[in-house]
Amino acid sequence: MSELRWTKAEKIVAKRVFEKCYQRECEAVLAKLKERVATADKPSDIWLIHDFLTEELKKIEDKYDYRYSILIFVFARLLKEGWLQESDLDGIEEDKIERIKYLATYNQK
Amino acid sequence: MSELRWTKAEKIVAKRVFEKCYQRECEAVLAKLKERVATADKPSDIWLIHDFLTEELKKIEDKYDYRYSILIFVFARLLKEGWLQESDLDGIEEDKIERIKYLATYNQK
Repeated sequence: MSELRWTKAEKIVAKRVFEKCYQRECEAVLAKLKERVATADKPSDIWLIHDFLTEELKKIEDKYDYRYSILIFVFARLLKEGWLQESDLDGIEEDKIERIKYLATYNQK
Repeated sequence: MSELRWTKAEKIVAKRVFEKCYQRECEAVLAKLKERVATADKPSDIWLIHDFLTEELKKIEDKYDYRYSILIFVFARLLKEGWLQESDLDGIEEDKIERIKYLATYNQK
């Protein structure tokens, strides 16, 4: 895929979208954490909660990599996983949106 | 310190005491975790909670080492930190209790 150029206006949108997805995903982790903690009542539960958090935070750290060279792939993954809505991309050039949608339907895990 | 011999009866008491302290300390961690999670409302809180848990579980894992060769030191630390009450040691020989109390007042951190 050729190098994509992001205009100044697109960069503003992209940064806001990226942060919105990050916020959504963190809120989901926090909600799951609250559920787990509410029903925890024995020592082993604490270890399980820690393992859960370690895994979730690792996934988030790996995923939220804000570099323009890979942003299309990051957005494709977020779209596929449901953190990103197509409507969030208003303000991004159509060509990029098409690539994001195309990638989201293929080999993103 | 010369090697201490633990009688069969003492071992039963020691194991029970050890587990009781472990249970108490885990309950305290869980209570703190519940407090922190209840007031968490932003992404950075999740990382702070994870750091808190990592640190607490590391301390617990290091501390709760059930080997008779070091049990006097483990109990001394637990006594100093308040997880162990002197009355928990009923059934352990007086000589050992004195050593535990002595060590608890000195260089245990």
